[in-house]
Amino acid sequence: MTKFVYLFHEGNSNMRELLGGKGANLAEMTNIGLPVPFGFTISTQACNAYYEAGKEISPEVKEQIEDALYELERKTGKILGDQNQPLLVSVRSGSVFSMPGMMDTVLNLGMNDQTVEAIAHLTGNARFAYDSYRRFIQMFSDVVLQIDVYHFERLLEETREQKGYTADPELTAEDWKEVIIKYKEIVKEHTKQDFPQDPKEQLFLAINAVFDSWNNQRAIIYRRLNKIPDHLGTAVNIQSMVFGNMGNDSGTGVAFTRNPSTGEKILYGEYLINAQGEDVVAGIRTPQPIQVLSKDMPKVYDQFLQISQLLEQHYQDMQDIEFTVERGKLFILQTRNGKRTAQAAIRIAVDMVNEGIIDQQTALLRVDPDQLNQLLHRRIDDSYERQQLAKGLPASPGAATGQVVFDADEAEQLGNEGKKVILVRPETTPDDIHGIIASQAIVTSRGGMTSHAAVVARGMGKACICGCEALKIDLDAKQFSVGNTIVHYGDVITIDGSTGEVMLGEIPMIDPQLSEEFQQLLSWADETRQIGVRANADNPADAKKSLEFGADGIGLCRTEHMFMDIKRIPIVQEMILAETSEERKQALDQLLPMQQGDFEGIFLEMKGHPVTIRLLDPPMHEFLPDKEDLIVDVTKLQLTEPNSAELKRKEKLLKKVQQLAEFNPMLGHRGCRLGMIYPEIYEMQVRAIFNAVAKLTEQGMTVTPEIMIPLVGHVNELKRMRELVINIANQVMGEQSMHFDYTVGTMIEIPRAALTADEIAEQADFFSFGTNDLTQTTFGYSRDDAEGKFLQAYIEQKVLPENPFAVLDQQGVGKLIQTGVSLGRQTKPSLKTGICGEHGGEKKSIEFCYQAGLNYVSCSPYRVPLARLAAAQATIKHGIVKEQMTVASK
Amino acid sequence: MTKFVYLFHEGNSNMRELLGGKGANLAEMTNIGLPVPFGFTISTQACNAYYEAGKEISPEVKEQIEDALYELERKTGKILGDQNQPLLVSVRSGSVFSMPGMMDTVLNLGMNDQTVEAIAHLTGNARFAYDSYRRFIQMFSDVVLQIDVYHFERLLEETREQKGYTADPELTAEDWKEVIIKYKEIVKEHTKQDFPQDPKEQLFLAINAVFDSWNNQRAIIYRRLNKIPDHLGTAVNIQSMVFGNMGNDSGTGVAFTRNPSTGEKILYGEYLINAQGEDVVAGIRTPQPIQVLSKDMPKVYDQFLQISQLLEQHYQDMQDIEFTVERGKLFILQTRNGKRTAQAAIRIAVDMVNEGIIDQQTALLRVDPDQLNQLLHRRIDDSYERQQLAKGLPASPGAATGQVVFDADEAEQLGNEGKKVILVRPETTPDDIHGIIASQAIVTSRGGMTSHAAVVARGMGKACICGCEALKIDLDAKQFSVGNTIVHYGDVITIDGSTGEVMLGEIPMIDPQLSEEFQQLLSWADETRQIGVRANADNPADAKKSLEFGADGIGLCRTEHMFMDIKRIPIVQEMILAETSEERKQALDQLLPMQQGDFEGIFLEMKGHPVTIRLLDPPMHEFLPDKEDLIVDVTKLQLTEPNSAELKRKEKLLKKVQQLAEFNPMLGHRGCRLGMIYPEIYEMQVRAIFNAVAKLTEQGMTVTPEIMIPLVGHVNELKRMRELVINIANQVMGEQSMHFDYTVGTMIEIPRAALTADEIAEQADFFSFGTNDLTQTTFGYSRDDAEGKFLQAYIEQKVLPENPFAVLDQQGVGKLIQTGVSLGRQTKPSLKTGICGEHGGEKKSIEFCYQAGLNYVSCSPYRVPLARLAAAQATIKHGIVKEQMTVASK
Repeated sequence: MTKFVYLFHEGNSNMRELLGGKGANLAEMTNIGLPVPFGFTISTQACNAYYEAGKEISPEVKEQIEDALYELERKTGKILGDQNQPLLVSVRSGSVFSMPGMMDTVLNLGMNDQTVEAIAHLTGNARFAYDSYRRFIQMFSDVVLQIDVYHFERLLEETREQKGYTADPELTAEDWKEVIIKYKEIVKEHTKQDFPQDPKEQLFLAINAVFDSWNNQRAIIYRRLNKIPDHLGTAVNIQSMVFGNMGNDSGTGVAFTRNPSTGEKILYGEYLINAQGEDVVAGIRTPQPIQVLSKDMPKVYDQFLQISQLLEQHYQDMQDIEFTVERGKLFILQTRNGKRTAQAAIRIAVDMVNEGIIDQQTALLRVDPDQLNQLLHRRIDDSYERQQLAKGLPASPGAATGQVVFDADEAEQLGNEGKKVILVRPETTPDDIHGIIASQAIVTSRGGMTSHAAVVARGMGKACICGCEALKIDLDAKQFSVGNTIVHYGDVITIDGSTGEVMLGEIPMIDPQLSEEFQQLLSWADETRQIGVRANADNPADAKKSLEFGADGIGLCRTEHMFMDIKRIPIVQEMILAETSEERKQALDQLLPMQQGDFEGIFLEMKGHPVTIRLLDPPMHEFLPDKEDLIVDVTKLQLTEPNSAELKRKEKLLKKVQQLAEFNPMLGHRGCRLGMIYPEIYEMQVRAIFNAVAKLTEQGMTVTPEIMIPLVGHVNELKRMRELVINIANQVMGEQSMHFDYTVGTMIEIPRAALTADEIAEQADFFSFGTNDLTQTTFGYSRDDAEGKFLQAYIEQKVLPENPFAVLDQQGVGKLIQTGVSLGRQTKPSLKTGICGEHGGEKKSIEFCYQAGLNYVSCSPYRVPLARLAAAQATIKHGIVKEQMTVASK
Repeated sequence: MTKFVYLFHEGNSNMRELLGGKGANLAEMTNIGLPVPFGFTISTQACNAYYEAGKEISPEVKEQIEDALYELERKTGKILGDQNQPLLVSVRSGSVFSMPGMMDTVLNLGMNDQTVEAIAHLTGNARFAYDSYRRFIQMFSDVVLQIDVYHFERLLEETREQKGYTADPELTAEDWKEVIIKYKEIVKEHTKQDFPQDPKEQLFLAINAVFDSWNNQRAIIYRRLNKIPDHLGTAVNIQSMVFGNMGNDSGTGVAFTRNPSTGEKILYGEYLINAQGEDVVAGIRTPQPIQVLSKDMPKVYDQFLQISQLLEQHYQDMQDIEFTVERGKLFILQTRNGKRTAQAAIRIAVDMVNEGIIDQQTALLRVDPDQLNQLLHRRIDDSYERQQLAKGLPASPGAATGQVVFDADEAEQLGNEGKKVILVRPETTPDDIHGIIASQAIVTSRGGMTSHAAVVARGMGKACICGCEALKIDLDAKQFSVGNTIVHYGDVITIDGSTGEVMLGEIPMIDPQLSEEFQQLLSWADETRQIGVRANADNPADAKKSLEFGADGIGLCRTEHMFMDIKRIPIVQEMILAETSEERKQALDQLLPMQQGDFEGIFLEMKGHPVTIRLLDPPMHEFLPDKEDLIVDVTKLQLTEPNSAELKRKEKLLKKVQQLAEFNPMLGHRGCRLGMIYPEIYEMQVRAIFNAVAKLTEQGMTVTPEIMIPLVGHVNELKRMRELVINIANQVMGEQSMHFDYTVGTMIEIPRAALTADEIAEQADFFSFGTNDLTQTTFGYSRDDAEGKFLQAYIEQKVLPENPFAVLDQQGVGKLIQTGVSLGRQTKPSLKTGICGEHGGEKKSIEFCYQAGLNYVSCSPYRVPLARLAAAQATIKHGIVKEQMTVASK
């Protein structure tokens, strides 16, 4: 005979499939000897049998339920429907996978016109008893009888109005009695029958209803969305109710075994004497710290302390425990792993290792890398309630407060005076760099996550919000408005670059914390991980920060930001506007020593750690003034100063800008396509790199630069560019009479490169997957356009599961990465592979990269700690993916 | 003993690998009894033996050569070096694969100070004899002795100057004798030895030199480029020289067995009496038509006629034959398949089938689909020598002459007056449509192959040149200039849209020809091909043309061109500028009957053939005025009429345009992303389609539209849009109380769609590979930008083998197509697949599509005949690729 019903002590935590999550946990707690209110679980098998029998509970199951109920009554000394010691039970669903709020629950079952009086008598609280009864009627009617709660709520509202009450707690026992009479009328009206008074009838109706709820609309949709199989079925848990409001020897509370904010090892929680959970939630009475319980009920407190330690040991994690004391007797209602801040998560994980409770691998898995982000940036105090003025794209994390300025020069001026400013612009250009440097944060009303402002701010670790379209900026009036609110030059605002929120005034902040425990955890991560973590860094300051944050090297050093320096931009423009190759070379000759200085600075900071340098990538027009501004200037000058030299100059400039303008610059003349058409630019850059290497080699350092060619789509491009690099290297070695090593590789950021990686690998020492651009081309999304126009709607409407620019799309982009790695290694088994898109700092993407066999990930310096942890977790979860991977290959 | 040397009659055409192409052909002609000057071939094996022996001819090979030479002397009655009947031979290389001009040849070998006099005596032409001798010295010195020809040419030039001659033919026999003396001095100076007088020494030196030439620099590079293996080696052909200038019973000529211009079956050629090939080339004497030979030498003519028929029969193709008559004896020097015009190719192929010479399949393979293009468009007479003024991108084929206009309204006005005009603009917009319709052709100075002008012109079959940057257009002055040439309004120009050339004045044209033979050939193609050919057509006129050109249906009906109609644009703009969904619906309600009319017209023309309709694809801002023009207008108005209503209106418009503007519109808010965010637009379009279907169904027609969702990248997009289509279909069927069939499919034009085709196929009845966009995203090229900026250089420098927008990139884009088809059919074996990019009309791409298992290709109506032929050729070459393909599935 199949066993369909399990008393709590007959189960354990391994029987989730049969008993559901909740049932298995109640069973586990019962078995380790905790005082859990007694009860039993009807298995998921019974649910399936119910459906197979055409939605009917078989006599066999029914009999087992009645047997279990009998046991329950025996253990509790209470009897369902008894007029002196009535048993009240809760009936709850519980499936294998948590489906919060998707299925139904009935509390206080067993209430009827008789037992309510017994409860009133037992609790000495008639108001509570009748309120519980009317709640039961309402809940039962909703879940079991399918009567819309709206009818009950309308009635309640009318009653309140009639009596002149503003809230439910004002209703007296007598009021509730009246309400109950009318509630029962509603039931009669809808079901043409009286509200069931027989508690056994109530019980079986409720069990049926829970089984039925497995297939209600929202449960079906939830399962489909979360890919939970339909055949699992739900279990039903019947548990005796306990009450914390049976007098001053009763109470209820919640406690964490350790402080969930700081991680400190001390019982942390609160409780209310003579109260139920609902009272705590209602907030009418102020709960006491849990420690007060030791004075109120010392024995109960000691027992609870012991139990909390037992639970922590048993579950090997910090627990969040709900308890009730009924007439001096402690009941544990629920325990689960407690939610905690990042700081607490780290401290608890490390402490538990030191206490011998868990091992290092478990500790590493205990901290969610996503949480770490908040520890690495200044952030708004969580306790502060935010008043959001406007919301844009969260372009660069961190929070900042400052006076609003609308112009880079003003920002620099005030910044130099020691003032904190936030630069607010429609969008930024290379001309604004000095203003960005001087500002605490940047806000733009246009542009997306890869706009100039966003990229520069992320590189500098400054907070930034982009595409905040609600801001109507009036540069002439030096103000911006959001609806009726006007913010003037000099007004103070606070922004949160992690959420995209703009707020008025100054808001309390918390500084980044890099605790000892954090360092300890990361050092364990480094010992564990089998995939390298590098940083994207473009200047000596970022290089320094990268090493501080524990990067193994630089995975992406972009050279275009070096071009955008305010002092260099005129020379860069000269180079672009050159009519001949000769003129261009003259400008490049001026840039050469500057770039060489950049590389020397970076190499010095990196102390011999590897540095991957990407040659110039963006299209030329990014270095020129804005086309539309020029059109306005020229049009104005044509009307006002038609013969001026200024007009001629601007007309000429506009012509060149128009000539270089592109319909789709993202897919235009950039990356190695620049190096192919204007080899002199790449030659200058490569010479600057090798001159720097030569100089440092002379000083006794060993520097092995990895030169990376961007945007390769055909092996012939890489072949040509590789030849260029080798030529210059030989020239420099000849000139300096020395030898140094270097490698030449490519970005894989175009689908065609991944698809033909076998050919491309012939010319490459390494591949670095540029997943930002690869995502753009694989999806056919321009990130700047998509994020402002349709991507948000796609994510909200679940068309896409996640933003593919934040979390790597494994099915599409990931397939190209797998193809790229496998074709590449087919040609060159020793090929080094990495990823340098923003996904390199995202945990799921890092896990994917590890499984795909990449040698390293590279991300913003500020995400390096996160990546180190995520890399360790991936290694723990999946074991060693590739034998050839050694720490050396990181 | 290995046989290294073959007399011509010992070989045949199957021995190409051993004898090389030339040797095998000479052997073949000899064997079928043609009077080929006698000779022998030293095999490629001998070449390899030469290299294996360290560049030495082994005694064994040497002996075989001497034996063959002896045979040659015996047969010709001439002896190498003989002072009365000297044998002169040519020594030529000949490898398996033709490597034109890559290796060396020596003519007139056997000449020395003695034999030259014998030749002078025998020919009665001392000038010829000495000229031949000095040519031999020069050629031998170059090829064998490695003396730079520059030395000989400089000497010849000095001699001409001294003597006051302007050209070589003025030199007398005496002059040549002087030159020879000096030539020999040059040889002595460089080699420190006399010019070799022993003909046998000459012969072996020449053979060595030919062997050596297999590994000269240019031959190695040529082989690498053409992937010819290095180990093949070259054969050497030794053949006795014959002379057509030995008197009036001698002569030389060239003849085609059929007319190479028209295909008419008549011997077509020319000859010169008492002359050598060189004399024909030099052009001093005018050759006679070949028919004159029948009067001059009736017997020789008859023999030649017979031989020409024999050769045609033997090679089963029209032959291009070189012959020489030496003292009344006919020699055939060479025969090869003759080059011919498209018209001739078709006629010859069809005639030969009718004459029983070849079968239909062979006939189909004889015509190059690429050639057909010229027959389907008006074109410039090939005999006219072009004077190109400027060159742009060949955006739409065909040629046209007309008066230059600079504005769409002017174009319409003059067009209505019956004048032929060519519209010249910096670029065109939807506002110019009426002007484009009224014009013969379009020229723009900006934009690429997918610019508005290009797309519209190709759709209309009008000639178009885009991105012709050399044109400096001054719209105010109504003129354009190219360098110093100024073309005014009303001046006549001619353009060739197939080459991109702009020319001054009117140029003679040839009208398109669709001969009876052409129709015949295409009907054979239709019987043969196993892949459907559809047309891209957006309006009833194009639909009609598609059927005329033999399309099986419409593979791509773009709906955006319907929006661009001059009368509709204001309503479309109203729709876009709508602030609310309600306002938008009002505008859409106005568009609904118009779109319905479009579809009715197309369905009617297509007479039940399938029609695939793509819902709106381009981003909204394409329908709005140009942003930069608006900026200029607003700036001007701000200065001149700051309070005008016009300024307010334009400012508002500019704001909306700026709001809709995108950084990379190609990757922006377009395709189904429009339908997802503004479902009301797609709903209107789908309703218009189904209303049209309902109306025609009522009239007794059967119309089964195929509704195509563009730019799908994730299955959820297609799922949602499919639901939208089904909803509207059900609504219309309900309203009309009728049933009709339809299918819903998608474009595969984003890499991610191909990579996840298994999922997408769950929601698709068909896939249509949009290879234009798929090429853009797979390469990361914006076509508009790439073609003007770097793509041309890439192709010229052989970075890319071909323009991937013209010829499908099989390695990259093709791999995605294969992935898409195989994943799609994995989910849905019956999935119909096609291609609708421009590659659908390109022969190599069609061959690839057939091999990839696609059911159809779709291309411009004007390329349909080409595609039908190419589809037949693919079927013949590769057999039936997939069993499931039947004519029905086309």
